[in-house]
Amino acid sequence: MSEQNLTATLLLSCPDRKGLVARISNFLFERGGNILDLDEHVDSRERHFSLRVAWDMAGFTVGPDDLHKTFLPLAEEFGAEWSIRLNRTKRRLAIFVSKHDHCLQEILWRSELGEYDAEVALIISNHPDLAPLAERYRIPFQSFPITSANRDAQEKSELELLHQERIDAIILARYMQVLSPEFVRRYPSRILNIHHSFLPAFAGGNPYKQAYDRGVKIVGATSHYVTEALDEGPIIEQDIIRISHRDSLQDLIRKGRDLERLVLARAVRLHLEDRVLVHGRKTIVFD
Amino acid sequence: MSEQNLTATLLLSCPDRKGLVARISNFLFERGGNILDLDEHVDSRERHFSLRVAWDMAGFTVGPDDLHKTFLPLAEEFGAEWSIRLNRTKRRLAIFVSKHDHCLQEILWRSELGEYDAEVALIISNHPDLAPLAERYRIPFQSFPITSANRDAQEKSELELLHQERIDAIILARYMQVLSPEFVRRYPSRILNIHHSFLPAFAGGNPYKQAYDRGVKIVGATSHYVTEALDEGPIIEQDIIRISHRDSLQDLIRKGRDLERLVLARAVRLHLEDRVLVHGRKTIVFD
Amino acid sequence: MSEQNLTATLLLSCPDRKGLVARISNFLFERGGNILDLDEHVDSRERHFSLRVAWDMAGFTVGPDDLHKTFLPLAEEFGAEWSIRLNRTKRRLAIFVSKHDHCLQEILWRSELGEYDAEVALIISNHPDLAPLAERYRIPFQSFPITSANRDAQEKSELELLHQERIDAIILARYMQVLSPEFVRRYPSRILNIHHSFLPAFAGGNPYKQAYDRGVKIVGATSHYVTEALDEGPIIEQDIIRISHRDSLQDLIRKGRDLERLVLARAVRLHLEDRVLVHGRKTIVFD
Amino acid sequence: MSEQNLTATLLLSCPDRKGLVARISNFLFERGGNILDLDEHVDSRERHFSLRVAWDMAGFTVGPDDLHKTFLPLAEEFGAEWSIRLNRTKRRLAIFVSKHDHCLQEILWRSELGEYDAEVALIISNHPDLAPLAERYRIPFQSFPITSANRDAQEKSELELLHQERIDAIILARYMQVLSPEFVRRYPSRILNIHHSFLPAFAGGNPYKQAYDRGVKIVGATSHYVTEALDEGPIIEQDIIRISHRDSLQDLIRKGRDLERLVLARAVRLHLEDRVLVHGRKTIVFD
Repeated sequence: MSEQNLTATLLLSCPDRKGLVARISNFLFERGGNILDLDEHVDSRERHFSLRVAWDMAGFTVGPDDLHKTFLPLAEEFGAEWSIRLNRTKRRLAIFVSKHDHCLQEILWRSELGEYDAEVALIISNHPDLAPLAERYRIPFQSFPITSANRDAQEKSELELLHQERIDAIILARYMQVLSPEFVRRYPSRILNIHHSFLPAFAGGNPYKQAYDRGVKIVGATSHYVTEALDEGPIIEQDIIRISHRDSLQDLIRKGRDLERLVLARAVRLHLEDRVLVHGRKTIVFD
Repeated sequence: MSEQNLTATLLLSCPDRKGLVARISNFLFERGGNILDLDEHVDSRERHFSLRVAWDMAGFTVGPDDLHKTFLPLAEEFGAEWSIRLNRTKRRLAIFVSKHDHCLQEILWRSELGEYDAEVALIISNHPDLAPLAERYRIPFQSFPITSANRDAQEKSELELLHQERIDAIILARYMQVLSPEFVRRYPSRILNIHHSFLPAFAGGNPYKQAYDRGVKIVGATSHYVTEALDEGPIIEQDIIRISHRDSLQDLIRKGRDLERLVLARAVRLHLEDRVLVHGRKTIVFD
Repeated sequence: MSEQNLTATLLLSCPDRKGLVARISNFLFERGGNILDLDEHVDSRERHFSLRVAWDMAGFTVGPDDLHKTFLPLAEEFGAEWSIRLNRTKRRLAIFVSKHDHCLQEILWRSELGEYDAEVALIISNHPDLAPLAERYRIPFQSFPITSANRDAQEKSELELLHQERIDAIILARYMQVLSPEFVRRYPSRILNIHHSFLPAFAGGNPYKQAYDRGVKIVGATSHYVTEALDEGPIIEQDIIRISHRDSLQDLIRKGRDLERLVLARAVRLHLEDRVLVHGRKTIVFD
Repeated sequence: MSEQNLTATLLLSCPDRKGLVARISNFLFERGGNILDLDEHVDSRERHFSLRVAWDMAGFTVGPDDLHKTFLPLAEEFGAEWSIRLNRTKRRLAIFVSKHDHCLQEILWRSELGEYDAEVALIISNHPDLAPLAERYRIPFQSFPITSANRDAQEKSELELLHQERIDAIILARYMQVLSPEFVRRYPSRILNIHHSFLPAFAGGNPYKQAYDRGVKIVGATSHYVTEALDEGPIIEQDIIRISHRDSLQDLIRKGRDLERLVLARAVRLHLEDRVLVHGRKTIVFD
């Protein structure tokens, strides 16, 4: 990242009306903020306004700790959903895995390389298999085997651990276990999943088998925020790869791995750079 | 095409066993055939053999009219589904359309350019709108308005016309009318459709609206053979295009047009070059 | 397009400094303008600011004819290069062609379909071959055969005709003739070319032959503004298609056609929607 | 891979003539070989024949050790360049690296996952930086710092080590040092390089900087066999990624990393599965 300077990023969405950009850019200008990047979108059908603006905090007359309080009146006037984030502190990630290592490997490698302004603080798994990989990267690894009998209790323990570790976002890196609605509600738009198909095609189990049996010429992968309805959350990123009759089911799984890890890695990046706004079932991605 | 020479193409599929390639290539070699292109595939899971071979008829000791008869014993021994086609005569196509012109335009333009070894012999529509475009390219245009009351009668007239015009294959170029099972059975693996989504996602009506409402980041198009089950036929070709939140439903429709016409055009080409073998619900595309 | 409402679009680039977005959005807000779309970019290495903003002219207190004059002081203060365009009048395009029809066909078809907020006013060619296609779409077609002896005189006649027809932009749709520097200087950033390779690879003549001989696995097409240095102008859009050893030179040419017409069509669209800012050798494309 | 069975793969190219497929498939059939996959191509312009055929050795009447000798007469009659490889023994790879880890990481990860029917036997570097990564995967790591003064001596030592370790193929995984012609000649069509551009665009040093300065809309990566002429060897695989004016040079480098490792990984796979035939400056890839 090499963002030496302190910068702030505002993500905001509200009903559209005249003067929103002027009001917000004035707010920044009057306080000495230099806009680094501004992207705005109006959904003219729904009359809905969305904006992402990043500015340099050098010379900004409002201190980091007063930022939220100072912007609040404007946001309330607009009836906005919004967040401001400073790049002061790295966000803390928990990665949930089962037995497949490719998505975990990818996130850990990128994290080590410094691609993310975040820290992988914790790996949680329902299987012990990937403990050695966690150890290789010196990340705490915690195993929570799940059965239908113990799921509630185990999730409770996981939530406690997540809270204790001050986790900001959860990445399901091919975690083969469905989270309960109670769990999901605790991290709204902060749990990212990778589904190994081009959703909404082949939702549910064994998507590569489904794709193979249907004889499609392209397979995909989808990263989305987790909501209570399985595979129905707002889509952040998707990509595809071409296949042919020469590809066996094993080939689909192999090719799909490359897709899954890239799509998940891109979605994580977009999330961490505050480029994703959720609006209803959909996302606005300021890319 | 500029295929000055007479060539033959054999498409064959049968249960796998030893020696199939040797037997078939010997058959050709012994009769003086020079193989121009041979592609073979064994589905090892299903133990199913598929092959496409094209050879030069110059110096081949079997005359064009005796080809079928001469190969028949071998095919029967193998228990094969097969076809041999010579590039002597152009195949005759009928294009079915409704109101959208882009797919029709694309096929006519490519046909005029000589990309297809075929002739567009007839355009059939349930609306009169595209008659001027047909006239521009001097192709006979026949209008068959369909209501629930007259469908059977109209299809009967269409089938008569198709028979009379010696039509080899039918292209549904955004024809917004479902064909009856009786009609479909008359042209097995010879009716090509373009569906404006990445099947099996968004089957049925208004796929762009469905895609827009779901908030996908990619839209697709699918060309498939028509079978009795709507949007369920063997897929010949698919492709996709990336979209974003900036794209309105109108933008999806506009971008999708480009996709639809290219995907259909490629599928038509694959079909006309005898590169597509149907096996169950799937295709083998020798590309 | 179906843009019933009068809208204005400002494209502006200047050295970066604090408050640019605030000043410009205030300018619009104070005069009752409702921003429909705003996209801004700061090149932090070069400290260069670029912006595209579109707004609704309904309720805007400055009339269309006073727009330029009213914004001028601000633009001068910023030391900006800028333009404001209203969607009152369709822009007038001239298309230059030689013998290949595919790019011309594509532009005419999209124009007829209403994809462009512009009018194809004139087709100029150095060969008579495409006159029938022009006639089919009822567009004036003028032939200017070029020899080394008559080039200057012919270009002079062409420029007179372009002036007389009030042409806003020129599209070289596989025009196989190099324009003189004098000609090019008359339409800065308003002549769009399509080059049938992935520039800077295979600049100059016969790019498909060059690509074939080099054995690349991908071929491309590039649309760029024409400058005095051949194939060196700022790139607007590029795309690629995968090829293999099975593709003959003829196949490359055929596949390339599809690429050329789509890439040129997209570049034309971006240009006509005022989404392209030229900055030095490069473009900023607000897409 | 999970190829439990012993299989053999023949790669062959020679001047085209009648009966080549028949002769070769008969050779296999008469000895009880079951063809698993056969792909053949005739370059009709150059009258050159290429073929890849894989067969099951179960029931084949020629033993593994006699295979080469038995096929030799046929190959000599055809004037062919050819190789037969059995999947008895894993091939031994040496990876050359400098400071960037992403390509090495990718190959090691895939190797560990079992994607390659090969063994990474050795990592050679001109810098000590990646020794810890080698250690993580428990692969011998040997450092050969290169200066203009010691290059010949160091290459000699490297060649001795490669010989001693019975290395079959060398992968240059972002090795930032040019190999001498003498070195290259020792491993013809067995040294694979990854160049971080879409060759032939941006050959030579700093391709991302070159791409950034030119303002291209797409960047690429190319894997090729190393020949004596730098960046001129036969291309095995290429791929691209879309960029925009929003991408800084750092973004290009970051996005390019993903491309480099995937393109190199695919080329390595194609090479190891005997899918690549070199013919002059080009490759035929049986994919």
